[in-house]
Amino acid sequence: MGAQAEEYQTLLMNEVLSSEAEKSTTLTDEEAQPNLEEVEKIIGYSFNNKVLLKEAFTHSSFLSTERSASSYERLEYVGDAVLNLLFSREQYNLYPDLPPGRLTRLRAANVDTEKLARVAIKHGLHRYLRHKKPLLEEQIREFTRAISHYPLHSNGLIDAPKNLADIVESTIGAVFMDCNSIDTVWEAFKDLLEPIINPATIKTHPVTQLYEICQKNNLKLRFVDLWEESHTVEVFINNEIVGRGSYSLKKEVAQNRAAKDALDNIWKVLGEEKENAQDQDQDQDQEANCQSEELPEMKILMCSLQLSWNRLDLD
Amino acid sequence: MGAQAEEYQTLLMNEVLSSEAEKSTTLTDEEAQPNLEEVEKIIGYSFNNKVLLKEAFTHSSFLSTERSASSYERLEYVGDAVLNLLFSREQYNLYPDLPPGRLTRLRAANVDTEKLARVAIKHGLHRYLRHKKPLLEEQIREFTRAISHYPLHSNGLIDAPKNLADIVESTIGAVFMDCNSIDTVWEAFKDLLEPIINPATIKTHPVTQLYEICQKNNLKLRFVDLWEESHTVEVFINNEIVGRGSYSLKKEVAQNRAAKDALDNIWKVLGEEKENAQDQDQDQDQEANCQSEELPEMKILMCSLQLSWNRLDLD
Repeated sequence: MGAQAEEYQTLLMNEVLSSEAEKSTTLTDEEAQPNLEEVEKIIGYSFNNKVLLKEAFTHSSFLSTERSASSYERLEYVGDAVLNLLFSREQYNLYPDLPPGRLTRLRAANVDTEKLARVAIKHGLHRYLRHKKPLLEEQIREFTRAISHYPLHSNGLIDAPKNLADIVESTIGAVFMDCNSIDTVWEAFKDLLEPIINPATIKTHPVTQLYEICQKNNLKLRFVDLWEESHTVEVFINNEIVGRGSYSLKKEVAQNRAAKDALDNIWKVLGEEKENAQDQDQDQDQEANCQSEELPEMKILMCSLQLSWNRLDLD
Repeated sequence: MGAQAEEYQTLLMNEVLSSEAEKSTTLTDEEAQPNLEEVEKIIGYSFNNKVLLKEAFTHSSFLSTERSASSYERLEYVGDAVLNLLFSREQYNLYPDLPPGRLTRLRAANVDTEKLARVAIKHGLHRYLRHKKPLLEEQIREFTRAISHYPLHSNGLIDAPKNLADIVESTIGAVFMDCNSIDTVWEAFKDLLEPIINPATIKTHPVTQLYEICQKNNLKLRFVDLWEESHTVEVFINNEIVGRGSYSLKKEVAQNRAAKDALDNIWKVLGEEKENAQDQDQDQDQEANCQSEELPEMKILMCSLQLSWNRLDLD
């Protein structure tokens, strides 16, 4: 990360944390009302039906004393479908040669919980959520700190509060139900959704990447689940421990962290494998395999390690 | 099924089967070209870009001798997203009190493979698919025969050829990419998609239904997988066999058939349970429970058997 980007992340984090500190006493107050006009300024769209906007920022926990109002869940459901279509159309047009499997992964990366939760934080939408979830404010602060270490996406290494992603979807759903135009929604949100992940910046999930590398190198991969005991997951390759990850709230995050740790260490195992395989026929297909577009990161790793390519079947 | 509906199904089946017989010699011929004008008449939409329509009806198997053309998969991907949004919006407006979980199930029932494959057959869209899959024609004939036994939806008891559903989605995707208006797509397809499944006609999947009944009645349910040996799945309740289902091409269909068979027989087990429970306090909550909307079929079954409602927790 460059110095400028780091400075920006620090500024952003300080701003969010201080605004959290200001708001934390009022946000859980059932009298609190989000200032709808501020949200309209952020998204650059003025609602005909302000009830939709209010609904988009109302969590069900807030409704115990306000039964007639609705929570954001139905709008979130519509917004999710709008967002999927917008990315499908955009990417169909932008990447005429990309097969549907890669379009699916690209779309998923742009609409997953972490990506949308980042959008909420970046544009301060979380400040308008009406809720009564005592732990949410602390989760938001933690998430805000964590994303400063991953400028684009952590790929499952941090835990994004789902409510943050929900309100991005519910706001998109609300704008769509208000104006009935997906083009208007795209105009309002395309800049807010930046940085949009593209084929050059998308990353393979660490668990997937680890499985693929081990399969292609005939390495025996085993995850050991110690989450119940110690909130930890360990990774063994050929019965040797190569990675460990911990997280107390979700096993999945601990597992992803363990996989990432294993990926950082796997060169040792692969180095040993390479030595064992040195008497094998070397690299006649190396150039062809290095042209694979499916797994750019893996390709780089493989090429830089000068593995025995005749045992690999990239593509 | 009434006499009129039966007659319609027979007519429909005869028409499809005879048109299949006529077409079967030409459909796998690589020179075959679908008559695009006929498709445009069926869907009531005239394309500005006829290439999109051609692409929508081109299976990848057809492309070995025509490499420059594209298959329908990318349009299917877009069409799937369009269809999801159209049903989301429609059902959001039609059912203002339905929670998102029920909206999701309702949408899924209207866009699943069997539902869309039925749409393709009903309107003869399958006749224009350019492909080189030798088995597909026979699968289509079998599917056409099978749906005549289930006027609305079989709920997983028959095997729908995915290619049929694909071309409905790819056609929807093609219309959308041609006109860029979801309203125009809805105008073109809303009648073709009839009968649209609604909260009154949606059915619970037989496996889900069986699990729910067994859980609520403290019955021990066990599926025995004999599919590898005999393409059969068996269902045991309290160690007694109550259902059996077979299908050679997909284990899932055999399992669903076994669950349906078990549901047809479960009254025997429940009858024994009832006798065992006769000394328990009877039915003080029966009326309230029978008002549950979640599982109408199950409710009827339970009410008719006059079970011990105090052990149930419907809703």
